[in-house]
Parts: sequence; C-alpha cells; structure tokens
Amino acid sequence: MAAYMAGLECIEVQLSIVADDVASAPREEKHRRRGVAGLFFAYKLAGAKADTMATLGEVKATADRVIAQTSSIGVALSPCTIPAAGTPTFTIAEDEMELGMGIHGEPGIERTKMMTANDIATVMVEKVVSDLPFVSGDEVAVLVNGLGATPPEELFILYDKVHDLLRGHSLKVYRTFVGEYATSMEMAGASLTLLRLDCHFKDLLDPPASSPFLPQGRRA
Amino acid sequence: MAAYMAGLECIEVQLSIVADDVASAPREEKHRRRGVAGLFFAYKLAGAKADTMATLGEVKATADRVIAQTSSIGVALSPCTIPAAGTPTFTIAEDEMELGMGIHGEPGIERTKMMTANDIATVMVEKVVSDLPFVSGDEVAVLVNGLGATPPEELFILYDKVHDLLRGHSLKVYRTFVGEYATSMEMAGASLTLLRLDCHFKDLLDPPASSPFLPQGRRA
Repeated sequence: MAAYMAGLECIEVQLSIVADDVASAPREEKHRRRGVAGLFFAYKLAGAKADTMATLGEVKATADRVIAQTSSIGVALSPCTIPAAGTPTFTIAEDEMELGMGIHGEPGIERTKMMTANDIATVMVEKVVSDLPFVSGDEVAVLVNGLGATPPEELFILYDKVHDLLRGHSLKVYRTFVGEYATSMEMAGASLTLLRLDCHFKDLLDPPASSPFLPQGRRA
Repeated sequence: MAAYMAGLECIEVQLSIVADDVASAPREEKHRRRGVAGLFFAYKLAGAKADTMATLGEVKATADRVIAQTSSIGVALSPCTIPAAGTPTFTIAEDEMELGMGIHGEPGIERTKMMTANDIATVMVEKVVSDLPFVSGDEVAVLVNGLGATPPEELFILYDKVHDLLRGHSLKVYRTFVGEYATSMEMAGASLTLLRLDCHFKDLLDPPASSPFLPQGRRA
C-alpha cells in the first residue's frame, strides 16, 4: 500500500518482500513465507546501504540478499489486541504456547503445553539452523526479539541457551541483539532470527543507526 | 547485602541509597523514599565517573548528587510474579491501575480506574515536576521506563505527551531514554523519571556504556 501511494506521487519505488518465517512454508516455497522479525536485518542493512549513496537498485539488491540469508521462528504465550479490532486475535490457555504464529497473530504450526525456556530455545534453534544451510565456522548475527510483553530478563535467559546451542553447531556469533525490535503489540513471547553473515553484511550491520526501535551508536 | 558480602572479602565499599519515588514519602522525608527506576541515572553517571579513574569517594559523591536531582513516579496495570513466591504480588482489575507502586509490587498511593495515556502522562509529570524545584529553562534527562510487559509503542505514546508537558513547563529535554531499563518482571505499566542536569552530569550521561539493559554507543 505504501509503495502504491508513493507511486501515485511519482516517487520511484522497488519492492522487497521479507519472507523469513520458517513456520509458514517450507524453504522451497519461500515466496509463500510470511515476514516476521527478520525485517529487522533487512531494514538495517538496506538502510546502511542507502546511506552510502547507493542506487535504489543496489539497495533493493542488498535487501533481497539479506532476506535470502535470514530465517526466523516465533513462539507466542498470549495474543495481542489490534486496537481497531478491539478483541484478542486468538485465545490460548495459561499453560499453552503456540509455535510459529505471525506477528499480527496469524495462526502458528503447533500448539503445545508450555515448555521451559531451554526447551523453547532448542526447538527454535533446530528450526532455524536446519533452514539455513550452514557450514561449520559460518558467522551469524542473532536476534532474540521480544513480542511486546516479555521482559528483557526472560529474553536473556532464552539467549543464554541459544548461544550455547549455536556454539554446538560450530556457528560463530558476530553480533547479538536481544530486545524488542519487531513487536506485536502486547503479545507475550519471543522469536529467534539468524542472519548468515559475509564481510559485506558486517560492514552494513555495524554502522550507527538512529530509529525508535534501534538506537545504535558507534562501537565504543 | 552485596555491600555486606563484599565487606567480608575486604573490598572497600560505600553505600548510596537511591530514593527517587515521589509516591513513597514526601521530599522532606527523602530518607524514607523507595528507590525505583531513578537507579538508572545513578548507575550510569556513577559508572561513567568511575571510568575516569575517580576515587571511590568521588564516585559515591556523584551518585549522591544524582540521587538528589532525580524524581520518579510509576503506574502499574498488572502485577508481577516473583519466581520464588510463585503468586502475583497483588491483584488488580482489568480496568484499574495503581499509581506509585514499587518495582517489586509494593503498594502504591492510589488505585484508580484506567486512564488514557495522555491523562497518565499529565499526572506523572505534575507529580515529578512539582517534586524537583525547577527553574524555567532548566535542562533535564527523561526516562520513560517500561516495567516489563508494556510494549515500546505504548511507551512512545506516553513520552509524546510527557515531552509536550515538559515543554509547557519551560524545561529543555537534553536526552531521552524510552524503553525497558528497570523492569519489574512481567508487570505491565511504566514510570517517569526526571534528572535535573548540569554540565558535569551531561559529561557523565553521554559516554558510551555497555550493559545488558543499556547498550549505548558513541553518539553518531
């Protein structure tokens, strides 16, 4: 819709569709996948590319390459209420969780009994690592993203196990983001996103950025 | 307790007690006040002072001066559950809120019907601004702190009104922090903290910091 409206004002537009949610379709049907928190890496790196005065085509190519190297999975413990709708997007029992829901509350792939943070991390890492064909020693950027109502303490508990598991897969963690970067109103839960890095991606990930959800300064 | 345990290991310790919660006692009985999110500024500025190789006494003096210029008020929309206790610290109806609760769920000063974000901001700013004796043109650092389950979108809505109100009081906002810096597990709600600035405080507020709850880089 934004692209359409910009086009009406004669602003040149190109579209990149984030499709990182491993739960919404298999990798060979990536065009059917939903976009979830992986948009964080696409925005950050495409934005940094634009900041080098690259052309629109080059910025889009960057976004598309990032999207191809990004996979995510989420878990919801409670629904969100979209203000215009006024009622929760779904209902879920206190002792249940849903794996793979969308960031607007679209249905997931599986509803299970509540699991421990360690078990959730294990399921998430397996889903994401098996989606990106990693080679031992690959470097990754990791995003453990809170969906809105999950406090930082719990996100760090989750990341602690994620970090160990990634090391077990011989993956090197280059940079980590733990916090609320792509939220779903007041939904409780979290998602895990991995971006496989190369040297170009690192040069775009590191520069400072200034936005409400990412106040990233120069490295100290 | 930490000071006591450090003392047992012959580590030299000095104590500064954060006492910023305007709801817990009047200013003339500041020693009876609870410490809430204002600890953020005390930690940040005392930490930056220590980083200049200041003596322990100088670091403590900085912390004490910051505490004297810091006031906060919080509002809770839901309780938190301390894991060791296993049950919520208090109960509150869906359409109610509590003003001035402590960050571990200690009782507040008033329970009211749920208010709009604008009305909450108005109450908060009045309570805090009237506590610090501001002079027109004073500069402040502002912290709008989420208690754990309140998403960034809502914190920014709150800050929008806070900013307008501070301007109405002829206060200059030097730097703003909106996010989860001093949380209370999965409590829904937020607090407002003001720190009155002088040039020494600014020099301690701005340097980069690296901690799980404050990843602050160099200014871009």
